[in-house]
Amino acid sequence: MSNEDFKKKLKKVNQFKIDKDDDIVELISSLKNTGFNAKRLAVACEIYKEMIQDKDCVKFFGLAGALVPAGMQKIIHDFIEEGFIDVLVTTGASLTHDIAETLGYHHLQGELSLKEVDDSELHNQELNRIYDVFLPNKVYEGIEDFVSKLEISDENMSVSSFLKFLGDELPKNDNSILKICAEKNVPIFCPAFTDSGLALQLGFHHQNLNLNHFKDMLKIVDLAWDTKNAGVCVVGGGVPKNFIMQSLQFCPNSAQYAIQITMDRPEQGGLSGATLHEAISWGKVSEKAKFSTVIADATIALPLILWYLLKAK
Amino acid sequence: MSNEDFKKKLKKVNQFKIDKDDDIVELISSLKNTGFNAKRLAVACEIYKEMIQDKDCVKFFGLAGALVPAGMQKIIHDFIEEGFIDVLVTTGASLTHDIAETLGYHHLQGELSLKEVDDSELHNQELNRIYDVFLPNKVYEGIEDFVSKLEISDENMSVSSFLKFLGDELPKNDNSILKICAEKNVPIFCPAFTDSGLALQLGFHHQNLNLNHFKDMLKIVDLAWDTKNAGVCVVGGGVPKNFIMQSLQFCPNSAQYAIQITMDRPEQGGLSGATLHEAISWGKVSEKAKFSTVIADATIALPLILWYLLKAK
Amino acid sequence: MSNEDFKKKLKKVNQFKIDKDDDIVELISSLKNTGFNAKRLAVACEIYKEMIQDKDCVKFFGLAGALVPAGMQKIIHDFIEEGFIDVLVTTGASLTHDIAETLGYHHLQGELSLKEVDDSELHNQELNRIYDVFLPNKVYEGIEDFVSKLEISDENMSVSSFLKFLGDELPKNDNSILKICAEKNVPIFCPAFTDSGLALQLGFHHQNLNLNHFKDMLKIVDLAWDTKNAGVCVVGGGVPKNFIMQSLQFCPNSAQYAIQITMDRPEQGGLSGATLHEAISWGKVSEKAKFSTVIADATIALPLILWYLLKAK
Amino acid sequence: MSNEDFKKKLKKVNQFKIDKDDDIVELISSLKNTGFNAKRLAVACEIYKEMIQDKDCVKFFGLAGALVPAGMQKIIHDFIEEGFIDVLVTTGASLTHDIAETLGYHHLQGELSLKEVDDSELHNQELNRIYDVFLPNKVYEGIEDFVSKLEISDENMSVSSFLKFLGDELPKNDNSILKICAEKNVPIFCPAFTDSGLALQLGFHHQNLNLNHFKDMLKIVDLAWDTKNAGVCVVGGGVPKNFIMQSLQFCPNSAQYAIQITMDRPEQGGLSGATLHEAISWGKVSEKAKFSTVIADATIALPLILWYLLKAK
Repeated sequence: MSNEDFKKKLKKVNQFKIDKDDDIVELISSLKNTGFNAKRLAVACEIYKEMIQDKDCVKFFGLAGALVPAGMQKIIHDFIEEGFIDVLVTTGASLTHDIAETLGYHHLQGELSLKEVDDSELHNQELNRIYDVFLPNKVYEGIEDFVSKLEISDENMSVSSFLKFLGDELPKNDNSILKICAEKNVPIFCPAFTDSGLALQLGFHHQNLNLNHFKDMLKIVDLAWDTKNAGVCVVGGGVPKNFIMQSLQFCPNSAQYAIQITMDRPEQGGLSGATLHEAISWGKVSEKAKFSTVIADATIALPLILWYLLKAK
Repeated sequence: MSNEDFKKKLKKVNQFKIDKDDDIVELISSLKNTGFNAKRLAVACEIYKEMIQDKDCVKFFGLAGALVPAGMQKIIHDFIEEGFIDVLVTTGASLTHDIAETLGYHHLQGELSLKEVDDSELHNQELNRIYDVFLPNKVYEGIEDFVSKLEISDENMSVSSFLKFLGDELPKNDNSILKICAEKNVPIFCPAFTDSGLALQLGFHHQNLNLNHFKDMLKIVDLAWDTKNAGVCVVGGGVPKNFIMQSLQFCPNSAQYAIQITMDRPEQGGLSGATLHEAISWGKVSEKAKFSTVIADATIALPLILWYLLKAK
Repeated sequence: MSNEDFKKKLKKVNQFKIDKDDDIVELISSLKNTGFNAKRLAVACEIYKEMIQDKDCVKFFGLAGALVPAGMQKIIHDFIEEGFIDVLVTTGASLTHDIAETLGYHHLQGELSLKEVDDSELHNQELNRIYDVFLPNKVYEGIEDFVSKLEISDENMSVSSFLKFLGDELPKNDNSILKICAEKNVPIFCPAFTDSGLALQLGFHHQNLNLNHFKDMLKIVDLAWDTKNAGVCVVGGGVPKNFIMQSLQFCPNSAQYAIQITMDRPEQGGLSGATLHEAISWGKVSEKAKFSTVIADATIALPLILWYLLKAK
Repeated sequence: MSNEDFKKKLKKVNQFKIDKDDDIVELISSLKNTGFNAKRLAVACEIYKEMIQDKDCVKFFGLAGALVPAGMQKIIHDFIEEGFIDVLVTTGASLTHDIAETLGYHHLQGELSLKEVDDSELHNQELNRIYDVFLPNKVYEGIEDFVSKLEISDENMSVSSFLKFLGDELPKNDNSILKICAEKNVPIFCPAFTDSGLALQLGFHHQNLNLNHFKDMLKIVDLAWDTKNAGVCVVGGGVPKNFIMQSLQFCPNSAQYAIQITMDRPEQGGLSGATLHEAISWGKVSEKAKFSTVIADATIALPLILWYLLKAK
């Protein structure tokens, strides 16, 4: 770019003011003209809004990290209910946590001052710790009871078909990710399904089960192939990020929109922290794409993005 | 703690819902009952509110990082104007950036897509880069003009006295940190003052200047000593964090409230990432203190905290 | 612990000296008596040595991250050849990279000064970037050629059986992870196998393939169940970490030794950054276990650990 | 750069082997041809070697972080004794820790399994915690005794002159940073000197002390101005990094060599994590400079670099 073109694109950083009666759209609009991750968050919000407004955009959402234990189940549920997610790729742990809550079990929180709690003591009390959240062992009993009674029609169905079946079988629940996906026919992919407490119990109780992971892989490639304008929102990285990205790699249309919210960084070379820019070299993200990486805990960023989308749409 | 006491303190993680017409107080209230950094942010907001409501609390605010270039000058200004900061400790760079904006110069932002801009090219164009923000060299000329004309009455005054003088000399400005501190008699400490462009220009134009850093050190110790309920909010760590903390270390009353917002972590042993819990061992933070560390970019967290305080106070 | 017991356990930090003719064992021995991650690295070395010396110890090794592209293939190969790994759990990407190198293709590195290379330009040149390493597209053609010719006897075999078959089919190679595992009968588990370029090509060329992931899940649980003294070394976290840990969770003997090398941190609640201490609450790690988390890029830590083990064993 | 030029510069990633009898020079030489931080560490080693071999190079070394408590005092001492550091810029805390050790006091380490030690309990036992290292309060009494007896000839001398005086006054000691700097006439700058326990005790016992910080600032600018080939090695960032960099900013010759070892990252905009590339835009680092940032805990990286330099020089 020539110097003159470059200089023309520069504009003043906005020393913005917050009024107590501002709404989230005004805040995000102000942050757009700042710097660092505040700006990136604002840009991410705007990109997501564009994804929603683009009728040709298929929105792939990758979800890793213990967001359900951290109280973000309803947030993700509402992303789906509002039509902000067309394809969900997630981890077996997230599904396990979602089923637990959907069956009426709960994750527990302590006071911050409890943080020095002794893990050996927790083990004795059958409380599994996820940073500052606790999952009682008895939750697994409830899941086991549900899982053991499942009547699985086809032991070789794809994981995504099985997750649709699970969603149908689960009781009605206003927070459940599996339930709302089943109701809205939003496919859920879980490439590392057997890496979960849910799969362990399935394996113990349904010994001939051989869910077909390859069907899922080919199905999401088909979805990506047929997409005119792919949009990607990745939370936390991991397998969900890679699975979405590899589906787009060989397609005629790579992602036109891309957002990632992560605490990982690129310097150690792992995919979770890789920049979206790097994804251009792979053909996963279009060189003309709008994209933004927000370095933030998703428990802070995701609710803000949803709030913005609900208000701004 | 006994098992029973521990279990009694546990409560259900709240799978909260956001409505588009919620306000920031409702959001923070929901986040309080979640986990990870969302909860820590909510707890930080509540602690800050308590600090404001506690008439005996002196609020020490440590500010490190390039927050003025990132558009957060007015946010910090409003913390001070609202009375949310009683003692400010900051870096020479922040003061330099504040003077630049106060004198009518601006930091510049580009499009995200400009991020691959070549730093050699920027150097040729006399644009200094701070991540995704740009500071034109000519800003320094404006500061130099201001600095060279200063008539300094006492070459051995403390840095904080000099910064009060600077605030008085600066033109009226609704965003200026130095100005609002001068107007409201909020002392500014800057232990690494000579580590700044501002000090370099002072040194070049006022060759006998020997601002007395020891007076500042003893003054903030006196302030800490006399404080009944010290409250600390640290942004980014660095020298401002340590300077506040060392002042509290030997006082009869260590901090009763403590908040830190940082991206640094404890494992490599640096003070910026050290936990507030560790500070208890030093006697800097009271073992009965309420405290919360939020791992977040301050450009996201600080505006949210201010917004909450304005609405909730 | 009583004050006296605590104080008795404290000893002087060693201000150690390095002589140019020291060997790695002397360096690690010195670091043992320091602090922060140097100490943790030294402790990790000693724990790994104990794992090797303990005849009852089954050594589970979780490998995530692009270590083969970063030149660590031979290092991992030698861990296996030396008998330092009994069970390997890894990602599909690592296997894809390993096959590429085993078939005679190479990852490429540029000069550091090339780091601003344009990703769009790389895409045009068919060079996929992994931070500062480049993978030419034509590598995939070589893999495809290999994969398309495979004669797979059982389309429903487990992934680990299939990976043993792959190792047998691959040409002789002194660096290959798959090859050395096949030769030494070290099982490789890959729970997210379909999340890989290798699986994509398998899926395209072997349309009825339905590798049985559940068999793997049950097989590693059996391995864990039968283990008297489980030892765990986790590099980078991700699915390999979780898959090993969930296998240990319900076993009579949880891990007696545990090492993790990661750049992730616990505060955002993801499993990759979770402390090994937290794993005690889950029963994945024994409360009596020796464990150490090293916050370090594995490309630095792994070669040092191997060097130490080779010299110290 | 044209495609052809780019491709010519690419070379094969080296899947290197470690033999147990390799030396550190062989290891670093192998790592040079890998990727990620292993490569950056190797490049940093080579740059430092070049700095030593370049007779026109003045080597500025910025030291932040609690490296003396972590057992790295002798390592830094030997950097100085070997002539690898010409100008040292550090924090008041590092000087305080150095004096403590030089006077015969010690930092203490516990077992890793002590990490859950209660900070309130530590406070009662007068043990100040620095992550996993402990500093007994009584150390301060020893420092106070030393400080109170100092006969300071000029209360307005520069901080660096005062630190030379301190080095002369301290007892002979083979590990002491202050002592070896005094002996070898290596100037020590400490821009945030009053941000330290050492300065607090000086302030209490020498009430008229007004060390001239501006003299230091101008002195290091003079040193930088006169330097033909500046070399910079920054550990941990903070004020020492900025103070060195601002000295180079307006000089005719910016840094020709630059190394930084840090765990900080650029995305939140703070100087500690800023890339060396960004420094080119400021004119702090030459666009032709050789530079490398290593994302690593300095307690691991620094001993390896010293070991390499001792062997390779």
